[in-house]
This record gives sequence, C-alpha cells and structure tokens, in this order.
Amino acid sequence: MTHSANRIKDVFFLPGAKLNKTFSREEEFMAWFESRRRANYFSVEQIPLDSFENWYFEKKTQNLVHTSGKFFKISGIRVKTNFGPVKKWDQPIIIQPEIGILGVITKKVAGVRYFLMQVKMEPGNVNIVQLSPTVQATKSNYTQVHKGKLPAYLAYFLDRRNSRFLVDLLQTEQGGRFLKKRNRNMIVEIDQDIDLLDDFCWLSSWQIRKLLTLNNFVNMDARSVLSCAPFADGNPRQHYEFLRHPEREKIFPYRLDDDFLNDLLVSMTEETRAHNSMDRIISWFTELKTKYELQVKEIPLKNVSQWMRTETEIRHVSKDFFSVIAVLVNAGSREVTRWTQPLLKSSSYGLIGFVTKPIKGVLHFLIQAKVEPGNFDVVEMAPTVSCSNVERRFKEPDAPPFLNIFENAAPEQIKYSVIQSEEGGRFFHFQNKCMVVKIDESTDLEIPQNYIWMTLGQMMELVKRSYFNIEARSLLTCIGLF
Amino acid sequence: MTHSANRIKDVFFLPGAKLNKTFSREEEFMAWFESRRRANYFSVEQIPLDSFENWYFEKKTQNLVHTSGKFFKISGIRVKTNFGPVKKWDQPIIIQPEIGILGVITKKVAGVRYFLMQVKMEPGNVNIVQLSPTVQATKSNYTQVHKGKLPAYLAYFLDRRNSRFLVDLLQTEQGGRFLKKRNRNMIVEIDQDIDLLDDFCWLSSWQIRKLLTLNNFVNMDARSVLSCAPFADGNPRQHYEFLRHPEREKIFPYRLDDDFLNDLLVSMTEETRAHNSMDRIISWFTELKTKYELQVKEIPLKNVSQWMRTETEIRHVSKDFFSVIAVLVNAGSREVTRWTQPLLKSSSYGLIGFVTKPIKGVLHFLIQAKVEPGNFDVVEMAPTVSCSNVERRFKEPDAPPFLNIFENAAPEQIKYSVIQSEEGGRFFHFQNKCMVVKIDESTDLEIPQNYIWMTLGQMMELVKRSYFNIEARSLLTCIGLF
Repeated sequence: MTHSANRIKDVFFLPGAKLNKTFSREEEFMAWFESRRRANYFSVEQIPLDSFENWYFEKKTQNLVHTSGKFFKISGIRVKTNFGPVKKWDQPIIIQPEIGILGVITKKVAGVRYFLMQVKMEPGNVNIVQLSPTVQATKSNYTQVHKGKLPAYLAYFLDRRNSRFLVDLLQTEQGGRFLKKRNRNMIVEIDQDIDLLDDFCWLSSWQIRKLLTLNNFVNMDARSVLSCAPFADGNPRQHYEFLRHPEREKIFPYRLDDDFLNDLLVSMTEETRAHNSMDRIISWFTELKTKYELQVKEIPLKNVSQWMRTETEIRHVSKDFFSVIAVLVNAGSREVTRWTQPLLKSSSYGLIGFVTKPIKGVLHFLIQAKVEPGNFDVVEMAPTVSCSNVERRFKEPDAPPFLNIFENAAPEQIKYSVIQSEEGGRFFHFQNKCMVVKIDESTDLEIPQNYIWMTLGQMMELVKRSYFNIEARSLLTCIGLF
Repeated sequence: MTHSANRIKDVFFLPGAKLNKTFSREEEFMAWFESRRRANYFSVEQIPLDSFENWYFEKKTQNLVHTSGKFFKISGIRVKTNFGPVKKWDQPIIIQPEIGILGVITKKVAGVRYFLMQVKMEPGNVNIVQLSPTVQATKSNYTQVHKGKLPAYLAYFLDRRNSRFLVDLLQTEQGGRFLKKRNRNMIVEIDQDIDLLDDFCWLSSWQIRKLLTLNNFVNMDARSVLSCAPFADGNPRQHYEFLRHPEREKIFPYRLDDDFLNDLLVSMTEETRAHNSMDRIISWFTELKTKYELQVKEIPLKNVSQWMRTETEIRHVSKDFFSVIAVLVNAGSREVTRWTQPLLKSSSYGLIGFVTKPIKGVLHFLIQAKVEPGNFDVVEMAPTVSCSNVERRFKEPDAPPFLNIFENAAPEQIKYSVIQSEEGGRFFHFQNKCMVVKIDESTDLEIPQNYIWMTLGQMMELVKRSYFNIEARSLLTCIGLF
C-alpha cells in the first residue's frame, strides 16, 4: 500500500475533530443512535378514521383538514394530461401551500466538513427514528400555529448574522402526492461552537455516505438537502483523491467499485466530453414544457371518482396506489406529546433508478422529463424510472420504459441498491428500492423523446437550478454526490 | 485617429455581407421600411363593445371570449398579497394558458451576425408597424385553430434538422396583465441561404442597436427574444472592441457615452468584483419567494369589483389603470384580412428604469424582486422601477421607491431614455419611457429588503435562467446587451 501515510482505518475515524458529539468509530455512533431511539420512546397505532382528534372531514367537501385550518389538508384533484398512457384521472392529494425550511448547519474543523444531524422520530418511519436534517420546519412550525416550541437551531436559518449561507434553494416535493409543494433547502456554515441538544450530533460527509448504504437510515429530507450541498467544497480534485483511497471500499461497501467510482469522477469533471451540451438539454426541456399539457383542478375529496372511504382508510377501488390512514401517536420528543394525524400509506415497494452508460468513455445518466400532477411547473427532471408498486408493474405490458433493465440487471451491473423511505411525517412505511445500474456502451437503447443522456457534472449544475425532482435528488445523494 | 484602418463610416455599412435583403445605409433601410408600412395598409378603429365579431361576453360570467374557445380570453382575478401597499384588489386579466413561440433566425456572414427581422403590423401599435421577430406564433397559430396560413419560417423552429438552436428558453410575459403567461423565446442559426418574403430583412446586431434608440420602433417581442441572445457570441472582448470604436457614438447616439460604455463592459466581465455573489443573490431571491404570499383566484369578469363596463370600454371606476376596448381591423398582410378583437388600452405613459451606480468602481444595477398578480412564480426580478401612469405617480406620497431618482435625474445622469411600447397584438398604445440612470458612487440609498445590486454579467446569467421579467429583459436589450 503506497497510501499508508494517510490510510483511513475506518471512515468514522476523523483526526483533528474538535467538536462536541462526534464519533470516531461506527460502533460508537450506532450505540449512541440506539440510545436516542430508546430515549425517543413513542408508539404509533393505526386508528379508525372517525377517531381523529383535531382533524375532521369537512362537511361540504369531505376534505380532511386540521381544526386550526393550518398544517396540510387532504383534498382531491381531477387531472387531464397528454403525457403517459393514462390521460385522465382523479386522486387524493396533500395540499400545503406554504414553503417550509429543510436546513442543515455545517462546520469545517481541521479541513473536514461536518453536518449537524438530528435523530428524529416521525410516525410514518419504518424504524421509528431516522437521521434527519438539523431543521425540518413547516411555516406553521416557525409561525407557531401549534403553540409548541420553536424548532431548535432555526434561528441560524432565519437570521444571517451568525451564519454564512452555502445553499438556499427552493426545491420541489413529490409531484404525485403533494400539490405544487416546495421547500426551502438550506445549508448554513458556522465558525463558532454551539451547544448540542440531546438528539443532535456532528457527522462528516463520509460518515453520512456510509450511512446511506443502510436501508431506511437517512431520511428523505436529509437526502434532499444534501443533494444541493456544494460538491466537495467546489474542489472535484479533493473528491477524486478520496475516491481513490485504497480503503474507500469501507466507505462504499455496496458495489461502488473502483471502476464505477472512476466513472463517476470522469462524468463529474469532463464537461467538454458531454454527449449533449447544456444548451441542448435546456432546449429539450423547454420543448417538452411546451408540448405537455397538464390541467389540474382541485375538487372536493368526496367527488374523487374511483376512490372510496372505508372505516380505516381512503383508497382506490382497485386497492392499487396509496391509501390515506389515521394514526395515533404517543411520543416524548415532539413539541406536543400526543396527537393523531393522517398519513399516506403504501404496502408495496416502489423503484427509483438511474440507468447509466458510458458514451465515448464518459458515464452518462438517462434522465426522464416527467409530468406528475402536483408538479410545480408541469415537467421535472426525474430518474430513468420512478414507479410505485414495482412488483406488479414488472409484469404489466405497459410497464414504464427501461423498467426491465432493473429487473434483468446482472449483479455486476448493479452499482447501488438500497431501500430508502419517504418522509415519515406524511408517509407511512413508504419505501422505494433505490438503484443505479450501469449498462455497456454497446447496448443500444431506443430513447423516447422525453429522455436524455446527461453527465453527472451537468446534473450537479441542474440541481443547483432546481430542475430535478426529489426522487432524482435523493438518488444523487445516495451515490455520494455531496 | 489611430483606428482608421477599420473605421466604420456608418454602422449600416457592413463589408462582406452576402445575404438577400441587407442594407448598407440607414436611409436605404428606412426607405424600405416605409415602403413595407405602405404595403401593409390597414386601418384600426375603436368600436363599441357590442360590435364584436367572433368575440362575445359569455352569459354566465361576462368573460370576453372568442367563439372558437381558443386564442385568449379576458376574465377577472381576485388578488390577495402581503407585498406592497395594496393588499387586496380585483382586476381584469388576459388568460391564454399556452406557450407561444417568439423566434428569430440568425446567420453569420463574414464574421457578422445577422438577425432575420419582420416588419409586422399589429392593431395596437402606435405607429402601425414595428420591427418584429422572425416568428410570433401562438399555439393557436401553429395548430391552425383559425384556419389561416402557417406563419412563415416557423418550420425552422419546430424542426431541428435545418437549424441549430442557440437559445430556447421559456420566458414570462407581463405579470400585471397576463395570468401566468410564458412564451418560448428561440434563436436558431442557419448556414444555408433562404428566400425572403416581402416583409422580412436581415439586420446586424449593431443595426438593431441603433434602431433601439428610436421611439416605438423595435417591438416588445423582439426585445424579449434578443435579451436572451448569446452575448457577442460568447466573446465579451469582441463586444468591448466594438464599444471602443472611435465612431461608436453613431451607434449609440443617445448619451451612451464613453465612460458609460466602459462602465457596462467592466460590469459585464469583472465577475469577481461583484458586490454580491451569485449564491447570495439566489439566497436573497429564495427568501423573498418564501416571504411573499400571493393568492390569485380567477373570478368571472362580472364579479370584478370597482370595474365597470360602459358602451365602449371596461374600466376602473377611478379611470385609472388600463381599460379593455374593442377594435375593428382591416388589413392586407394578415392571415385573415378583417377582424375585431379586444385590446388593453392605456392613455398615459409608464416608466421602466434601472438605477445604476458604481460600487468600488464596478457599475451595479439595482434590481427589484417584484410580485405581480399574474406572475408564474410569485416573485420575478424586475427593473428598479416599473409603474404605469407615471405622471400621476410622481406626485403621490406613496410613489414607488426610487421613482424620484428618475424624476430628478440631471441630463448627464440619464444614459438611456427612449419610449418603447408593449406588444400591439394585445395592447393599444401602451407606452413606457425606458430609462437608465447612473448615480454617483457616493450617493447613499436606503435599500429595502426586496432590492439588490447586481452586475451586468450576473444579470446576463440570470436572464438565461429565466429569472427576469419582460420589462427588465426589454431594458437590457435597449442598452445593447445582445
């Protein structure tokens, strides 16, 4: 080993760290994380829809609303579009017309960048608590609608005097479940020491990369914010050196092999070798925004056709898609210690995946321009495939394009495959298999008009311009691009 | 004169031009333009609202609609916002929920870039015809709703085989008059020769810059598209050399003096000396999008309060603001030779202006984040001042911030001041005084939260990302930044 001088015995070992609450060994972090899970005792149980407290079905519309008139509501939409095989449908949707804050505080110590992360319970989480951003605040939160405490550390995001802004971008949420919902994704840097509350700790970017190889560990909001992080402090070379580290397989244990890491690096830095110029990509996207039509009309939940309400759920007559359920939560760590709320439930897995392929030696990602009914602006840039209920879709004759590539991928083609879940404050056990597959340069694919090849460098730039949907951003974070 | 070797006797003299229909002298162009004005004979007369043909007031709503159900309609909106002094109002608005194409064909001959421009009549133009883009096509146009001819040259924009795309961006229209209207702004480059129709000619960018110093000559759509043009083919140096040309005062006769041209150049190229970083600007804008709320509800025109319908117009009870009128057009050059249509009329001038000021020697522009009810996404970047009925506003105690700077500007501070008008297909004699004023570095201004200083280079980049509203884009074109 020629790199022995700066060998890393364990990615969790970080020389020079002088922060409260850092971890030099993975076991140590995991033990602490488990202790926080136990300390955050709470129970979640599904209850009948008529047992809501502070939520009710509005008489005229049967929309599901909070007694304060704030937070979110569940209403219906009637959709017409010329995109995709289904042109018309009704569905329930979450409406929350306000911009929340997803924020992470960062600090550099001895050349290593740390992020202040939170162990946070959400009622819909599969495993109770997940690693979350420093702050997840709805406007209701920080304008004190529910009369609870102001979320911790929020002041660093609202007031610029004690922090530097590295990232401050509006990014969209799930267009299939939320109506035009966006959050403000923020990363602020501090120099001063700050006191850490019990559920908070400092983790380096490499520690977080490792945790992203565990199923359902890093929550969706954290993945969304980190995708906007200034890549390796603006120095791809630094990223590169780390990727080449002889023990970096400990960092990416899951098949992010030498060759693929080199692929990612080249795809990140070799702008001039991109198959499509940025102007070409913007033009392609502009054309599709002109082509696709999307009419979305809000309708009362009672008028949503093909959906029914039972004692315990609002669901599609076919039992496909998601359902709306009620849960009762008893918890210690939240602003209020007992509450009921609706959640969107899914009992089957989805699939979110990038197909990648070298083009003239440079790895490219196949990106879809996708219309979803709640999209803020009709079309967003999405992964090659994102679909729910994937086990059933595999078998369908009109399965989404390229789904078969994931189904038939040989083990050596699968570069990333981890289960990640949707945000547990709105979604109950909503899990997606997140995959990145690499196919041979010689594989000829027929590319429909609404797909295009991009390099990783181009995608990083487009994330900064808020072109990518949350599924694509999450997947970029998963493969370590922050 | 040391530059005599490449002196330009007249900006209209272009050595080496080998195109059909170019002009080497201004008089020659003007004579041709006048001949096209005469050839495009037509008359426009205001008629009573009950004399519409093919337009009618819908029974239930009193909305003004076309019999085909296509084109645009005039409906009402009810607005609530926390931006500005007026928090609530109703108004009529133009609704045309489709993306049109504004396109210019460009070609380089002997190193000089030419644009294919059209002499086009529009019923609302002050002076009948104006210089317009190669193509102005609504979706109704190119999907043949009105059964006329397909607009000339549109094929170069719809089909990529015979042209290269230089610009293909969605840009917004007037947020005070249109509800969420955007057009696709396109510039395509060709190498081949093409036949020119009677109303078309090739003009170089420098010829167009000169025409932009004439009142009401280059139409709004042309100004919108040209603002997106790749600046000096990506070579600021080339622009610079031209700006330094000893006879360039012939090009910018109106007070764009040596010093100000140098100011513009430095502001365009000295990125590192910008007062605010791009990240800071994006963060500022993100924060304001979070802060400002805008609720816009479409309502029937009959329910628009404080507005009334007389025999000849729909207007505010105060007679302020705009009015909706009916015109009868008899014309020879249009797809259909006789028609009636509604237009928005204004009898008083507006003002659109940039305040500029050197900061540490680099010229900066004071940009406003402005909420207008029809904005596509709540807030857009706007000129320092844009307001209608400026003569009256000057006198008001709650006049918009910085308006007094334009009122009180000394002649040597006024760097550009030309009357330009809104698009004549929707607006009748709607004129704005377009101004750029430079104040001293030592002038201290109190800057409200929704204003920020930017360099010209930063503005060019933000135009490419569709952040600027049409008034700001138009003004950038006016000072030659294309």
